Amino acid sequence: MKCGRNKEILLVALGGNALIRKGQRGSVEEQFRNLQVPISQIARLTRSYRVIITHGNGPQVGNLLLQQECSETVPKLPLEILVAQTQGQIGYMIESTLDSELMKQGISSQKPLVSLISYVVVDEHSPAFEHPTKPIGPFFSEEKALRLPYPTVKTEKGYRRVVASPAPITIVEKNEIIKLIEMGFVVICCGGGGIPVIREGRSFSGVDAVIDKDLASARLSCEVGVDIFLIATDVQGAALNYGREDEQFLRAMTVSQAEAYLRDGQFPAGSMGPKIEAAASFVRAGGKRAIITSIDAIEEAVAGRAGTEILGG
Amino acid sequence: MKCGRNKEILLVALGGNALIRKGQRGSVEEQFRNLQVPISQIARLTRSYRVIITHGNGPQVGNLLLQQECSETVPKLPLEILVAQTQGQIGYMIESTLDSELMKQGISSQKPLVSLISYVVVDEHSPAFEHPTKPIGPFFSEEKALRLPYPTVKTEKGYRRVVASPAPITIVEKNEIIKLIEMGFVVICCGGGGIPVIREGRSFSGVDAVIDKDLASARLSCEVGVDIFLIATDVQGAALNYGREDEQFLRAMTVSQAEAYLRDGQFPAGSMGPKIEAAASFVRAGGKRAIITSIDAIEEAVAGRAGTEILGG
Repeated sequence: MKCGRNKEILLVALGGNALIRKGQRGSVEEQFRNLQVPISQIARLTRSYRVIITHGNGPQVGNLLLQQECSETVPKLPLEILVAQTQGQIGYMIESTLDSELMKQGISSQKPLVSLISYVVVDEHSPAFEHPTKPIGPFFSEEKALRLPYPTVKTEKGYRRVVASPAPITIVEKNEIIKLIEMGFVVICCGGGGIPVIREGRSFSGVDAVIDKDLASARLSCEVGVDIFLIATDVQGAALNYGREDEQFLRAMTVSQAEAYLRDGQFPAGSMGPKIEAAASFVRAGGKRAIITSIDAIEEAVAGRAGTEILGG
Repeated sequence: MKCGRNKEILLVALGGNALIRKGQRGSVEEQFRNLQVPISQIARLTRSYRVIITHGNGPQVGNLLLQQECSETVPKLPLEILVAQTQGQIGYMIESTLDSELMKQGISSQKPLVSLISYVVVDEHSPAFEHPTKPIGPFFSEEKALRLPYPTVKTEKGYRRVVASPAPITIVEKNEIIKLIEMGFVVICCGGGGIPVIREGRSFSGVDAVIDKDLASARLSCEVGVDIFLIATDVQGAALNYGREDEQFLRAMTVSQAEAYLRDGQFPAGSMGPKIEAAASFVRAGGKRAIITSIDAIEEAVAGRAGTEILGG
């Protein structure tokens, strides 16, 4: 009881726009200011829920890749190290913002709070490694792209590196996270979908890949026994015929409906698709509630008054 | 008993050479290989001790500063964010190396292991902010140095930025670390001396400064109640008349002797000085054992057969 073991566990997966909004360059001041919106809501939610926070890292890892390209003297670091660096950066920003917010709201300063480095096992034989699909980092000219030591893809603004985005198999720190949650800690983890590693016999090795943060968060939610899995993003939820005149917002759908819409191509691969997939996989595996909502409606969505909820059945 | 509460607590502060050795450029492969030396010893020590690992970040933060200088398009990040990035990077490297090593040594894979983001409160009125003394990052020409928006210092290889290095007052996550150690976790924390923050009313703000990692580790050792505080560096310990013909290695000295030698200028400010100061402050505050030793003699030093030990009295 002391540790709040009777409280439900809520996992909030924060999208990239929690830190950098459309049209912003992403100065540190902007990122801290933007974080106020989700974090003030999450701080209040810690009164009623045990909380895990995960987050994306797209723009931040993109900036590190850009900086790497321009320096000749500094040894280039592989992608998994850059993901680790963004876990440090964003983990600190979220933790210190939440820390300050908990103090402001007069919520016990004794509430323990940690931001953890997390790595996530992927399958080295995953087909994702043969056909990398995830574009990351800076844009190159065709001439430059042909000379790069890694595969690229042509986009509207130029050529970009593509990397594998394999499915998350297990979160290495899951047992630690379970213990921390049992003890009443607020845990920030799985940043950027986790640092991708493969198991080689008795050791781990990082791999050049990125893991979808919503799929990793769904995996973690299953492994930890989360009650409510909430994805906070830049739209109010999922919609049919998105962006068209007959767009129809979906307040709720069953997991079977969600999977049928996915097959019909209603949710695009780069954006809403993986979120629906993540939410559906959580509910399929026995999860209680999965919600996709906008960053400013987290509390409303937890209360059942906003967002798109995926239901069992 | 289950959590090993009868075991003594050992804190190992790893110097920069645990990752990058003299003459190396610091590729990731080199850093992982170098880490094997201290980490294989620390893995064995987890059988007999509850363990905390802290680490430096000088070369890594230097590389990030270099990369920032060369990119025009990416918003520059303040120093505390770069420290946070290196906590992610090095925390991951240490944790995954230790994780693999524990598996190889057949030590329970159930030993919980976490790498935490840590920030450390400093005093905004510290005189260190008026007279910054710590050189960091790339070297500049005099012409360029004059146009930089921050103070620089002339060194043999050119001008370098200088930042404040204020004393650590308290480690914000100390209560979390105490709980984790009580539960038998191996904890990696306080990377690079911690992310420097000041308290402003009910919130924390990062500041452009770096904290000496040995002083921060000593502070943490006191706050957590560490039994053995060990600083692992690139020399076998402290010596009188270091580098001269009459150099005399010190196997042990009392804290009073250490303080007298410090006043005599026996231990240079940029290297052995802060290590002796950190070790002495820990023993003065009631700490049991403080040892300075080389990275390859950690186990020997814990066994009392290597290094320089600072004794009470």
